[in-house]
Amino acid sequence: MKYIPEHEAKEILENYGIKSSKTVFCVSEDEAVRAARQIGFPVVMKVASRKIVHKSDAGGVILGIDSEEAVREAFRKLMSIDGAEGVTVQETLSGIEFIVGGGENEHFGSYVMFGLGGIFAEVLRDVSYRLAPLSRKDAEEMIREIRGYRVLEGYRGFRADVDSIAELLVNVSRLVEDEEILELDLNPVFASESGCYVADARMVVGKRGDFSYSLEDIGFLFNPESVAVIGASRHVGKPGYNILWNMKQHGFRGKIYPVNPNAKEILGFKCYPSVLDIPDNVDVAIIGVPARIVPRIMRECAEKGIKGVVIVSSGFSEESEEGRELEREVLEIARSAGIRIFGPNTTGVLNTDNGFITTFALLPVVRAGRIGVIAQTGLFLGVMMEMVVSNHPSIGFSKVIGMGNKADVEDYEVLNYLLSDEKTDVVGMYIEGLRNGRAFFDVARNADKPVVVFKSGRTEYGKKAALSHTASMTGDDDIFNAAVKQANMVRVYSFDELFNVSKALSLQPLPKGKNVAVVHYTGSGCVQAADTVYLNNLNLAKLGEKTVRKIRRVTPEWHQVNNPVDIWPMVEYHGSHNAYNTVIEALMTDQNVDSLIVAIFASGFGGLGENYRPDFKWIKSYGKPVYFVIEGRRDIVFELKNEYEINGIPVYPNAITAVEVLGKVTQYALRRSSLQ
Amino acid sequence: MKYIPEHEAKEILENYGIKSSKTVFCVSEDEAVRAARQIGFPVVMKVASRKIVHKSDAGGVILGIDSEEAVREAFRKLMSIDGAEGVTVQETLSGIEFIVGGGENEHFGSYVMFGLGGIFAEVLRDVSYRLAPLSRKDAEEMIREIRGYRVLEGYRGFRADVDSIAELLVNVSRLVEDEEILELDLNPVFASESGCYVADARMVVGKRGDFSYSLEDIGFLFNPESVAVIGASRHVGKPGYNILWNMKQHGFRGKIYPVNPNAKEILGFKCYPSVLDIPDNVDVAIIGVPARIVPRIMRECAEKGIKGVVIVSSGFSEESEEGRELEREVLEIARSAGIRIFGPNTTGVLNTDNGFITTFALLPVVRAGRIGVIAQTGLFLGVMMEMVVSNHPSIGFSKVIGMGNKADVEDYEVLNYLLSDEKTDVVGMYIEGLRNGRAFFDVARNADKPVVVFKSGRTEYGKKAALSHTASMTGDDDIFNAAVKQANMVRVYSFDELFNVSKALSLQPLPKGKNVAVVHYTGSGCVQAADTVYLNNLNLAKLGEKTVRKIRRVTPEWHQVNNPVDIWPMVEYHGSHNAYNTVIEALMTDQNVDSLIVAIFASGFGGLGENYRPDFKWIKSYGKPVYFVIEGRRDIVFELKNEYEINGIPVYPNAITAVEVLGKVTQYALRRSSLQ
Repeated sequence: MKYIPEHEAKEILENYGIKSSKTVFCVSEDEAVRAARQIGFPVVMKVASRKIVHKSDAGGVILGIDSEEAVREAFRKLMSIDGAEGVTVQETLSGIEFIVGGGENEHFGSYVMFGLGGIFAEVLRDVSYRLAPLSRKDAEEMIREIRGYRVLEGYRGFRADVDSIAELLVNVSRLVEDEEILELDLNPVFASESGCYVADARMVVGKRGDFSYSLEDIGFLFNPESVAVIGASRHVGKPGYNILWNMKQHGFRGKIYPVNPNAKEILGFKCYPSVLDIPDNVDVAIIGVPARIVPRIMRECAEKGIKGVVIVSSGFSEESEEGRELEREVLEIARSAGIRIFGPNTTGVLNTDNGFITTFALLPVVRAGRIGVIAQTGLFLGVMMEMVVSNHPSIGFSKVIGMGNKADVEDYEVLNYLLSDEKTDVVGMYIEGLRNGRAFFDVARNADKPVVVFKSGRTEYGKKAALSHTASMTGDDDIFNAAVKQANMVRVYSFDELFNVSKALSLQPLPKGKNVAVVHYTGSGCVQAADTVYLNNLNLAKLGEKTVRKIRRVTPEWHQVNNPVDIWPMVEYHGSHNAYNTVIEALMTDQNVDSLIVAIFASGFGGLGENYRPDFKWIKSYGKPVYFVIEGRRDIVFELKNEYEINGIPVYPNAITAVEVLGKVTQYALRRSSLQ
Repeated sequence: MKYIPEHEAKEILENYGIKSSKTVFCVSEDEAVRAARQIGFPVVMKVASRKIVHKSDAGGVILGIDSEEAVREAFRKLMSIDGAEGVTVQETLSGIEFIVGGGENEHFGSYVMFGLGGIFAEVLRDVSYRLAPLSRKDAEEMIREIRGYRVLEGYRGFRADVDSIAELLVNVSRLVEDEEILELDLNPVFASESGCYVADARMVVGKRGDFSYSLEDIGFLFNPESVAVIGASRHVGKPGYNILWNMKQHGFRGKIYPVNPNAKEILGFKCYPSVLDIPDNVDVAIIGVPARIVPRIMRECAEKGIKGVVIVSSGFSEESEEGRELEREVLEIARSAGIRIFGPNTTGVLNTDNGFITTFALLPVVRAGRIGVIAQTGLFLGVMMEMVVSNHPSIGFSKVIGMGNKADVEDYEVLNYLLSDEKTDVVGMYIEGLRNGRAFFDVARNADKPVVVFKSGRTEYGKKAALSHTASMTGDDDIFNAAVKQANMVRVYSFDELFNVSKALSLQPLPKGKNVAVVHYTGSGCVQAADTVYLNNLNLAKLGEKTVRKIRRVTPEWHQVNNPVDIWPMVEYHGSHNAYNTVIEALMTDQNVDSLIVAIFASGFGGLGENYRPDFKWIKSYGKPVYFVIEGRRDIVFELKNEYEINGIPVYPNAITAVEVLGKVTQYALRRSSLQ
């Protein structure tokens, strides 16, 4: 790791087309005076040293030097600082101050930071990030993203050349990658209408991380035609029994070979003493024996020529140093035999297409659908899916993968597989940490399917020692968030939101614009929806004249037709079926309406008459996204919601949630089309 | 409305102890030169005029004037501006720039605004608000509330005297109230270590709103001993039938007199042709006849000497101009006869203590409890409570009031009643708009019970023309939010949150500090809880040594004991009952733990063994707040949740929600004790 002094750093910047204040390195008073005269007063003078990183703190920066005498005095003062190797004499810049940073994140590699100068970056943390290399579009987005952006567009007579800032950011991103930059502060940079000039630069170079990776086809791990269950058990409730039970329940369409030296038959499947005794090819083995035996089993699998295993056993690196050692051994055997591993310490995999399932937690049958899930929690196919299936039996999944310890197969490989899987339309991910975040980013960035990400563990900021402002103020989550934006993933903040957004994306078309129409059966629902539309960067569609005329047909004289449509009086006067159908038809055929949210009340008691059920085919025929809100009595809501969703209409518990989901989906859709 | 020119405004400021830059009003060049000499160069010169409000925009402000010649030139230039009445010569100030604003909100009256100068206030909208008059504490809070606060504490060598800013804000709040201020900008003000000086002032005075109000005892509206139901009906499902049915269901403990000229008896109650025929006193009448008949009925009620009515009929001001006229007529009759009205256009009132209920929507029986609800939606005791009761039958209410059109009784009166009602511990409110927000604020500010507020309609900013920055950038919701903070109400953003926070406050004691312990059965739950703790301004309690030792007793060797406590391995090795009891006891007796969140999994299938049920009395005996999270299978979760809550332990659907609720409750508790 090497610190590059300012004047040398500025020369490196020059090579990348990044302009700095005129800066002359001097070792004598006379040199300094000549430099100052040539540059023009007033000048800035700074101490130059390979040892002094924080020049200001050392009293090594003097501004506003406006005479030869002052230059000499400054020279003497600066040279008296411990470690001084010389001074630099520099041009005084003016304009709008900003900061550009760069660095190396341990999981994602090179990144670039941007913010307005001083207080904005340091006090308000009003900065934006992107991973290097930046496209021009990335650079423009990160400039527009900061809260203080308006300052650049012109404030109190100053105005910045935003184009030249974008160019600077792109150049910095090349520099960060090509010059092995570990830390970089360009702080401040001055932007004026005539361009950008760096006033001070702090640069640290050194060895950067290795984020190389390869993408193999791991599809065979999901689609075995024959499976060995090693550690199969006759005892109901034991993991080795439950796995077989789950496979049977889910109707696995391949051959199943339980391995248990002490049993003849389990759940109707013939048992084998060892995997080597199976008189057939085995595509994938599910290993559920105690950790200490797993290396031996792995060797047998290697001998048998098995290319994929799912290790559901725990007792590895998650538990102890001894377990870590076992995990290393297992991995070594796998590497040399060309075996790929899911796990260990995981419930593993579910493929609803062929009924392949490896979890040892008894699971109700998971509905087949278009959502693929990757989760960094070993128990995902246990408690989580039990919860999801019982609360949302109408949500359909293509594949579900609990990653476990990720000794071998990592998230980005599974993501890559699901992105090419023809049964999957949307990928939902739960992530706590990523080993090779760069690989994940690369794969996600090339996705043509939506990737919805719930990342936790987001508040632990790196406490590492850093030489630059940039590195010291940058948390891992800032970088993760940059990757999310840059790859146009959809970030969510809870499991509920993960499933809410994923089901919208999997069931409905994308909106073509931001204009939403809302229908609600209460005034307060209308007001809440309108608030949420505004707060989620959507617009309330201005209804066309024809639309209003159509809605008027089912509206009592005294009631106003607005968006949101307060449909209660229409329902009272014309019945819910007639009112909802008329209003929905009018809105769906209105060119100003890009998407629709409709709320109904499901009552079994004293409510709004019959519960509304649209003709689902009809409502989908318009090709515009429509989400329903169903409120009311618990059991009736549950039944109706399932009916709607099985017929392709996502349902949410209230208008606020529905609009929030639509906000995320719309942002995804519009960025996607702007990136294409 | 009158605009006060700067130099006069500064004199008014002086009377309130608010110091300004030395400012001399001059009408000749010589005067200006004398003033500049006396003040000391460099000076600032500005045009002075009653007609020029935006001096900068008119080119009427010149900075950095440093010679007599320049003073003369500036004088000539400024006097040539159209409308100039003179110039002011002013001292040049330095320090940290900030802005203080003041104004008059149409619902809440006088307020004060504070923000850092220029970009911070105008671009970032980094400003805070409080209603006038300000206490010293209010002023200190509003200073600390802005994101840029750190700047005042010292940044790049500048440092402000925060005490003197607080004093200035208190003085401004007196001024705003006493001088009939409609709009005020002190912008900029300069703060240095030696105090605050106003550099420029813009002041508009005029007639302010009238927010006077009186607080009568309206308890009799909730506690009638005899009730007339006018418009009673024999037809099941009709409003006039449903009201009677609901009263019967809820076991109303007073006398019921249905009024219907065509019926002898309904639901076992003898009917009367008119209210005047009832041979008894009538405390409250519920009026459910068509709007046009209501004035006649009101006259009969007046004649009968009835002092309270609930008008459930619609067809009033919410519908038409004609209805508005009717509402006015009804109110007039009420005023002259001393009758108080709930409604019209409302489902009215429920009092679980005596079974008094006025809604015409058939309602399941609402559980009695300690939460009082005031909702600005006529249908609250219809769809909303049907939904709440079916989804959360374990939540108990004292009184529920749907306000309807608020022709007479307003929110603040009902709030005042509930705050003194001995059956109510927490008040939950749903508000869209308030007529007399100041009265509401006054009542809420004096509350010694928590008031939880869900306000919608928060994104409609006033588009009124304004002379000051302050007024033009201040939305109604900013002022509402100031009132919430100043009165230490708890603001929530959905009905779910309203009930989640209210039930925590009604069932559990307040935490004494910010230190939370979390117990979860999954690692991912622990991580998510930790994130949420951090993001909601709470701390993860540092566990005492003794606590760790106790928990170790049920923890396998290889598993670490941290906070959050990942309890899964303990449950596996020691059973859920033993593991949870041991951990909870250890945490409850730890002095470092102020509050506790415990998550359990409720499975009916393949989960974590028996569902944990604590001894509820034991767990409450520690006197610390404890919230549970129950996840798992839908029906089992529902049953367990109800059981827990009926026994006084609030239950949430996931750790994120539980921690968010605790964050709001803790903030309330700590501000409450700091205000006492």
